[in-house]
This record gives sequence, C-alpha cells and structure tokens, in this order.
Amino acid sequence: MIGGYAGKLLRVDLSRNEMWDEELEEAELKKYLGGSGLAAKILFEETTPHTGPLTPENRLIFMTGPMTDTAVPTSSRYSVVALSPKTGIWGESNCSGFWGPELKEAGYDGIIFQGKAPSPVYIWIDKGTVEIRDASHLWGKDTFQTDEMIKSETHPQAHVACIGPAGERLVHIACIATGGKHTRVAGRTGMGAVMGSKNIKAIAVHGNGKVPVVDSRSLRDSVKEIMPEMKQRGQKMAANGTANSIPVYEQLGNLPIKNWRQGSWPEGAQKICGEQMTRTILTGSYRCKGCPVGCGREVKIGEGKFAGVEGAGPEYETLALLGSLCLIDDLEAVAKANELCNRYGIDTMSTGAAIAFAMEAYEKGLLTKEALDGVELEWGDADAMIAMVEKIAKREGFGEFLGMGVREAAEKLGPRAQEFALQVKGLEIPGHDPRAFHSVGVSYATSNRGGCHLAGETHWVEIGTVFPELGWDKPFDRFATEGKGEVVAKMQDLMSLYDALGVCKFSALFGMRPIHLLEWLNNITGWNFDLKELMKTAERSYNLRRLYNVRLGISRKDDTLPMRFLSQRRGEGGAAKALPHLGAMLSDYYEYRGWSDEGIPTPEKLAELGLSDFAVS
Amino acid sequence: MIGGYAGKLLRVDLSRNEMWDEELEEAELKKYLGGSGLAAKILFEETTPHTGPLTPENRLIFMTGPMTDTAVPTSSRYSVVALSPKTGIWGESNCSGFWGPELKEAGYDGIIFQGKAPSPVYIWIDKGTVEIRDASHLWGKDTFQTDEMIKSETHPQAHVACIGPAGERLVHIACIATGGKHTRVAGRTGMGAVMGSKNIKAIAVHGNGKVPVVDSRSLRDSVKEIMPEMKQRGQKMAANGTANSIPVYEQLGNLPIKNWRQGSWPEGAQKICGEQMTRTILTGSYRCKGCPVGCGREVKIGEGKFAGVEGAGPEYETLALLGSLCLIDDLEAVAKANELCNRYGIDTMSTGAAIAFAMEAYEKGLLTKEALDGVELEWGDADAMIAMVEKIAKREGFGEFLGMGVREAAEKLGPRAQEFALQVKGLEIPGHDPRAFHSVGVSYATSNRGGCHLAGETHWVEIGTVFPELGWDKPFDRFATEGKGEVVAKMQDLMSLYDALGVCKFSALFGMRPIHLLEWLNNITGWNFDLKELMKTAERSYNLRRLYNVRLGISRKDDTLPMRFLSQRRGEGGAAKALPHLGAMLSDYYEYRGWSDEGIPTPEKLAELGLSDFAVS
Repeated sequence: MIGGYAGKLLRVDLSRNEMWDEELEEAELKKYLGGSGLAAKILFEETTPHTGPLTPENRLIFMTGPMTDTAVPTSSRYSVVALSPKTGIWGESNCSGFWGPELKEAGYDGIIFQGKAPSPVYIWIDKGTVEIRDASHLWGKDTFQTDEMIKSETHPQAHVACIGPAGERLVHIACIATGGKHTRVAGRTGMGAVMGSKNIKAIAVHGNGKVPVVDSRSLRDSVKEIMPEMKQRGQKMAANGTANSIPVYEQLGNLPIKNWRQGSWPEGAQKICGEQMTRTILTGSYRCKGCPVGCGREVKIGEGKFAGVEGAGPEYETLALLGSLCLIDDLEAVAKANELCNRYGIDTMSTGAAIAFAMEAYEKGLLTKEALDGVELEWGDADAMIAMVEKIAKREGFGEFLGMGVREAAEKLGPRAQEFALQVKGLEIPGHDPRAFHSVGVSYATSNRGGCHLAGETHWVEIGTVFPELGWDKPFDRFATEGKGEVVAKMQDLMSLYDALGVCKFSALFGMRPIHLLEWLNNITGWNFDLKELMKTAERSYNLRRLYNVRLGISRKDDTLPMRFLSQRRGEGGAAKALPHLGAMLSDYYEYRGWSDEGIPTPEKLAELGLSDFAVS
Repeated sequence: MIGGYAGKLLRVDLSRNEMWDEELEEAELKKYLGGSGLAAKILFEETTPHTGPLTPENRLIFMTGPMTDTAVPTSSRYSVVALSPKTGIWGESNCSGFWGPELKEAGYDGIIFQGKAPSPVYIWIDKGTVEIRDASHLWGKDTFQTDEMIKSETHPQAHVACIGPAGERLVHIACIATGGKHTRVAGRTGMGAVMGSKNIKAIAVHGNGKVPVVDSRSLRDSVKEIMPEMKQRGQKMAANGTANSIPVYEQLGNLPIKNWRQGSWPEGAQKICGEQMTRTILTGSYRCKGCPVGCGREVKIGEGKFAGVEGAGPEYETLALLGSLCLIDDLEAVAKANELCNRYGIDTMSTGAAIAFAMEAYEKGLLTKEALDGVELEWGDADAMIAMVEKIAKREGFGEFLGMGVREAAEKLGPRAQEFALQVKGLEIPGHDPRAFHSVGVSYATSNRGGCHLAGETHWVEIGTVFPELGWDKPFDRFATEGKGEVVAKMQDLMSLYDALGVCKFSALFGMRPIHLLEWLNNITGWNFDLKELMKTAERSYNLRRLYNVRLGISRKDDTLPMRFLSQRRGEGGAAKALPHLGAMLSDYYEYRGWSDEGIPTPEKLAELGLSDFAVS
C-alpha cells in the first residue's frame, strides 16, 4: 500500500480493444506526485514531436493525485492531459466534481487511453472491472442526456465524464463534461476533441473502495482545525459564486470588456455579477466532493425567451468572456449560452473569446453578415452571440474556424485580423488583464498550456494573498515590475502542486496554505517531505512540461503577449494608464527559473531536478 | 522652371523597350517634395497588394530631392524605392556619392523602371538622351569592373549605378553600388535584386546641366555662414570615419557583440575602430558631392593574406555587423569582407547579421560543418566569415538561405533558430542596441522598412543632439520611457525630410538644423514654407509609407522587437541591466501619430495630411 493512491493505472488500447492494469512505483510517485505532474512524464515518453493530436498515437490521460478523495478539503480534482489539438503543444485541463474521487474508489489513480476505437464506445468501470461498451446509441446526444442515459444503463450512482456533439465533431475547443446539470468540465485545450478522435463518448465510473491514508487521525484533526476558517472566508463565494468578484474586477480594470478594448463598464458589470444572479435566477448551489464552500451555481429561468435553462449557472470566466468581453450585459443570455456550451461540450472561455474576436472582425468589415449566414454580429447582441455558440458547436459556416480558436480564425481572415486575435501560444486569454495585474502578463506568457490564468493565479498576490512560506509576507504592488519574475515562477510551481495533488486552487484563498499541503501529504502517504523538497516536485513538473513544449519548438520567442496588452492602454477605469513591462519581468523570470537565453531549462537545472533524461537537444 | 528640380522624370518600360519623359507638377512636389516621399506616392499608385517584388509589375524608382546637387552641404543624396523582395513590404534605400547629382544634371529628377528587359541591358543617359544598351558582356562582372567598363564605353566622367553578380542572381540582400572603388551603395531591402529581376545591369549617367535655384545668392550666403562650424564639428569623422564611434558605443553598451548576446568587448572594439583603421590601413578619404566632411575611407592592404584590398574601407555599420556581431576583431578581414560585399553587390549589414545568425546556429548544432560545405563557422573566425560572404553572394549551399535573410534562414532551420533570428519585419537589425538607447527600440519597431536605424536616428537625441525647433531643448535620458514615443515620431518625420530633400543625415550632427533646411528649401524653390508645413510634408511621407505597408497586412502586431532585446539583459557593460519598456513607448507613439488601435492612420489623420485617397480599408 502507498497511502493516498489506489496504486494502479488503467491502460486502454482502443485500437486493439485491450486493457490492462499498470502498477505505480513509489519512487515515481514521490518524484511526480500525480495529476498533471505524473501525466507529463507519461505523455513526454509516449508521444514524439511527430505525433498528431487527433491521431490514435496521441494519449489521453486522466490522472488523480494523492489527495484526491481524501479528507483534505476541496480534494475532488484530477487532470486531463494530451497533446492539444487546440494549440499543438502541451494540453492540460483540470476538473473537479465527483468523477475523479469515484475513479479512485473504483480502484484506479488514472487512465491512459491510446489508439482509436473503430466505432463509438464508452468505458464502464465498476469497482475494478472494466468494459468497453458500444456507444452508438449515445452518439449525437448532448452531455446532459449522455449523463442520464449512461447512469440508467449502468448504476444510478455512477459518475460520467463525456463529450457532447462538439467533441464528436472534433471541434478544437471541445471539452469533457461531468456531473450532468451540475456541470464540471475539463474545459481548455480541446481535451474533448482528443476524446472524440478516439471514439470515446464517455467514461462512467462507480466504486466503493476507500483511499488508504497512513495517518488518517492526524489528517482529520488538522483538517478539522482549519474548516471553520475556510467556511468563514468562503462565505461570499458560497453566496454569489465566483462571479461575486465581477464588480471589483471591473473597478480594478481587470474585467475584459469589448475584446479588451474598453477600460470601464460599471453598469454592465453590475448586471452580470454574482450578486445579480443571486437576486434573480439562482435557485441553489452545488459543491464538488469535499468542498466546504460550494461555488457551483444552480439556476433556473422560468420565463422569457431563455425559459428552460436549468442547472449549472455561469461562473466568473464564462460571464467575463461570453458576457463583458462581448459587451453583453444580459445575464440570462449568458446563462443560456453557458448551458448550450455545457450541453454541446465546448469550452465557454474559448467560445466567448472567439465570439468577441468575431464581433470585432464584424465591426471592422472583415466578417460580413453573409459570411455569418445572416447573423448580424454586433457588440452586445445576445441573440447573435447565442447563434454563434450554435455555429461553433456544430462547425457550421465560419463557426468551423472559430471553433479552432482565434489564432486559426485570424489566419483565415488575413493579417489584419491577427491584430485582435488575443491568445498566447494558441490559447485564448482568460478574464484577467495583464494591464491591471502585471504579474499576470508573465504568467500568461510562460504558462505551459498558453494563455492561462490557472497556471499561476498570480493576480492573487497582487490583491492580497501572501505565502510567507514561499518567501514573501506582503502583497505586491500590481503595477510594479520588480520581484514579479520570481513570484510568478513560485506561484506557477505552487499551482502545479495543487494540480499534482488533486486539490482546488481556490482553497488557497480560504486559508489552505502550502504548509497544510505539506503536512497533509505526509499524513496521507507516510512520506517525510519538507517544504523545499515538496516545492521541488512542483518545479520539476513545471520544467518537464516546458521541455515537452521545447521539443515541439517552443522557446523564449513564444513567451509573449498580444500587442493589445503590451502597447494599448485601457484608457479609463482602474488600470487606465498601466502597461506591463513584460520584458523586464520575463528576464527576471528566466533567471530565477534557471532557463537559458532561449528560455530552455539548462542542463544544470535539469540535473538538479532529476530530469536530465528529458533533455531536449 | 521649378527651382531645385530638373522638372521631369524618366519612365522606362523595359518589357516594351519604350521610354518617355513625364513632367512634374508643382503641386505634387510641394506635397511630397521628392526622394522617398514622392516615390512613395508613385509606388503606392502603381503597385497592388498582389504585385510580386521580383516580377515585371514591380517598379524600381530612383528619386532625387529638391536639394540634391545644390549648394546645400551634403546634398548628394537620392532614394531607391520598390516593393522589397527582402521583406515583402515597403523597400527603400538612400544613397550618396555622385550618381544622383549627375542624374539631375543630365536632366532628370528621377527614373521609374517597369517591366523586364528580355536580356541584360544597361541604361545610358547622356545630357537628356537615353539609350537602352545591351549588357550581356557585363553580366557576371563585379561592380568595380562594371563601373570601369561602362565608363570606358560611355564617358570617363559618367557615373554608374550597377548591380554585381549577387543582384543578377536575385540574392534578396543584393544592393545597388555606385562609385566603383569609392563605393557608395543603396544597401538595404534588396533593391539590387529588383534591378536584377528587370535585367538591368547598370544605369550610367552623364550631365552638364545646372539645377536651377531661385535665390542662389541667399542660399550661398547662408551656406557659407554654416560651413566653418560643419567642418569643425566633422573633424573626428573626417579623421577616422563613421567607425570613430565604435569604442564609445562599446562603452555605452550599444555595439552589437556576438549576435547581441555579449554585453561588453572593449579590446575587440579597439581593434576594429576608426582610429585603428587610421593608424593602419588607411590611405586617404573620399567625400560625396557637396560634403564638407568626407567620411569615406580609402584603404589599402599591401601584405598578408588580405593583400590586394584597395578602395573603400568599412564604415561603422559594416564593422559592427561583420565585425563585433560575429566576434571578429580582425580589421583587415572586415575590410576584405567589405570589399567582397561591394564587388558582389550585397548589403554588408544584412550579410553580417546573417553570418552572426549562422554562427549561433552552428554553436547550437542547428547548422553543421557538413551543411556548410566544410566551413567551421566558429565565433570570431574571420576566414569562415569570409567564406560565408562568398557563399551568400553566390547562392551556394546554405548561403542561399542566408542571402534571403535571417527570418527566412530560420524558417529553414526550424523554430529554435527563430529565437535568434534578429530582425523586424524581415530586415536585420543595424548596429545600435535598443537596450542601450530605448528610443531606438520604438524606431526599429515602427520603421517602415523594418529594422532600420536611419528612419529615426533617435539614439542621437539620447546622446546629445537637440532640436529646439521641434520642441525639445535638452537630450533625453537614454534609459527613460517617458517622452520617447513622441520624440521617435518627430525624429522619423525629420529624417523623412532629409530623405525627401536629398541631404545627408549626418549633417544634423554637424550643425545643419531643420531651420536651415526650411530656409534653404525656400531659397531653392521660391516657395514659402513655414516649419510646421514643412514638417507636415515629412509626416505625410511617413504615413503614406505606413499605408503602403498596411495594405500589405502590416499593423500594430508587427511593430515589435525580437525577444532578445525585450527580455534578455546585456549583463555587462554600459547597458548591463537595461531593457526597453517598448509597449509603453509604443502606446505614446501611436497616440502622437494619430494611429488607430490597429496602428493604422485614422481617417482624421489622413484628412489632415491630404492622404484620404490612400485610405486602406
């Protein structure tokens, strides 16, 4: 027994219709922990620079961490990893809910898919037994329907990860959905398209095992101590969800508005914020396994043109990208679009970003009503936005290109459109502005999966979060340059730790600190990590994913931001004048990381991290 | 008569073997003055976004200005303009010597070539008569030989602009050379390749006319007044040439070293500087028509392996790019390479930059000895550098790709090489470091022909040059961000004025001020410009060239610098820690220019400049 782990991985070769178990070795777990850390090692070893993302040779890896499904608060999470069809580089998406814990209870820490099934299948894992089942009757069904149908065919307490029609159609921004109407998705980098390319409609799991914990008493006692604080500090998010922060982010000049061209929009922000949702369409909340907060929104729209929406409500990123980014202040419309995205199985974030891009192209005459099959894609037009969601999910007309993402859509429209295709390394920018939080610029520029806020969550340290254990005890000035390179690297490492362990990053805002993670990991596994060693596992993971990208041609030249963030001021609002000095922060970042003048981990750094075998020449 | 102008252009249609004169209209001259200002209008109107640079449809325009060949000091200059095969956008090169003045004395302000001759030809212009002559006996000859042969066939006092074997072979970095051994070239953006594509080997001119000047007495009196100061202030440059500044630029952290990776190299700088040349291989100096300074170096190497070099010596940019950039401290070797470049007819700057790029690729294993046909391209190896000059000029082996430039060579070598392919918009970076002079970064990023120092010469205002007439009366802090956007735009406009009028930019360092240009232009033409109106012509020209590029897809997204300048500190020397905050300076620049969020002149700006007809939708 290794505490915290089920102890084995499931390997499924769909081309050969074969499955087998693979034992996990403790030394490897100590080195990579789990989640996207461990998955990075597997993907690096099992793909080559010539692997195509939508070919049978690609891997699709689901991986929990040693904390997943333990008494640790918010320990519901797991990573989905593959070479991304969206970006062509490292693909990774982290998801919560109940599916990951259930997989562990069914006896597996993770699953590696390879090959391609000759026809649609779903995988049914029931307490250690695994079946590949025909899914032809499910093909074409949306994620809510699929969830229900599979539960009724397997077990009412089964948990289902599935793709919608978009994943079947290989839309590059397709996601993997779980939880049915209490939706939780692995949203970014097109993991749903990889699943679709393998003809996997769903993976249903049901277990009743228990994750072993070496010192469960100490763990429980320690967790008990922190719980009141977490509940207390999570009250606002419990009440209004993640979108609670929309007005304050608008005030700070962080909320994206009109494809990042408008500085301020207070009245719009009020109309789409979490409090407004609470006042209007909210019917309840839902929580992921082990969460003391419960940020999930349950909404229902009873009347009007969006009547019928019922279930998961939009969260911050969805409201920022399908809402303010498109200048849409109609909360119900965003709730409708959110449900459509969830049902079709597409990432709400990249979808919103793609539609805002198309709106700017429409404004500038690069996309016409004719090219959009009659849609008049004006800023703020909710009906047009919803029409585009449908077109993207169905690969209809120009929706086909928008579903590849803004980089690819801009290539189709010509160089002028590239001006406002806001992405990094092919991934659309999330709802945080590098002009408002300068560290965010470095984090976007260097995140392994491209434009990503979750890799660093560095805006937190520029608002008020401090991590004395990591070497700083007061918040950073959000507009300052100094110190940002180092803090971004440290936060990326810390967030990699969360992704490897299987816990939710929001917990850091509610009092769960690195020192808790350390203590609890030792309780769970019986290991004896110190903080330095633990952070080293995270740094190792970060570097290994960088190496994966380096092997695909990524280097310093790719670590940049769209010119709009670098050279165009918001003009009004809380970040009216600020522009990040990206180069100076990056220089400090590379120096702290021990990366070469090309932005590649040096041989010395690799030796220090035990990664010399992964050196890319 | 219009003072300052011969009054007509020569049009040569090579495909049809037809020639005719075109009268110049005064209103148009007032609007564009001449040089690259007037040429921009012609090129914009006579090419389309679909014109190929090496097709008969491209134009090749030689254009003098109203000051060319007048009593104005340094008034020897003219512009060569075409769609560039080097960059795919606006191509422009400005040249001095005697050819431009001679053209004017032969009765033409400029020549527009179109079409393509069925076989090699040269053009012979003798006091208003023009012949297209067979040049098959000249094909393959180097520029020194060609100059001599044509003079002996035409007139001993003829002046010849010709291409070497590189231009014949359509090497993208081919230049147009004049002056024989007293070489002066139109070096950048591949104007020699355009000439080669039209089968024009040379254009020989001989005249005896006189450029009319309305108020020649006032002009002469005023010029007389300034002459002593110019001679005085030009003494150092007269003594040691432009390379006089190498040691001080090295101290300031401005000299490019080892493909921009090394911060400091004092001993090397001493070995390749102008003073060292004066002490060793210098035999004399030569001057362009009307110049009171004479920065041209006449050198001779009598013995050793480079014995035989005789004529033009290398100037600052050549020594910086073929010398320090390649870590070569052998002055005689650079003199040899310089002569080879001049004879073959390739730009010494792009050649040096391409070789330094190849040296870095060699160091990093991306180019091998085998791929280089046996050349061991180590840093500082002068013989290897010279071998590569030959290969580039002859399109041999990998020299073929280097002769296209570093952007294209890097495309051939793969993404890792793009990391150190230092260029902007396809043009290799000159010998001034944006980390040492932050304004230079903005100037490179926004120069219409790509990475170019001559478009702005903005480092001057960060060392000590002031132009109170333009709104500032003390030098700028070279590491500051504030004020740089505006001053770069103003300097670009001012330098555009020099290029339109036909005078040498160095004269600004020796006391020739905008106010002199204004007074003298009015003396020459009889017009009554004020300074504001005069600067408006320059701003018009700058915007028109921007529009030319916008039509080809250029926008804000292209106005950036290689990551090495933005995010990698020199580490030692006079600019050890500095990195330019490019985005902030650019933001100010666009605002001052009145350009849109895409970096495109707004309709209001175009109306103000009388350029509405050139709006690009």
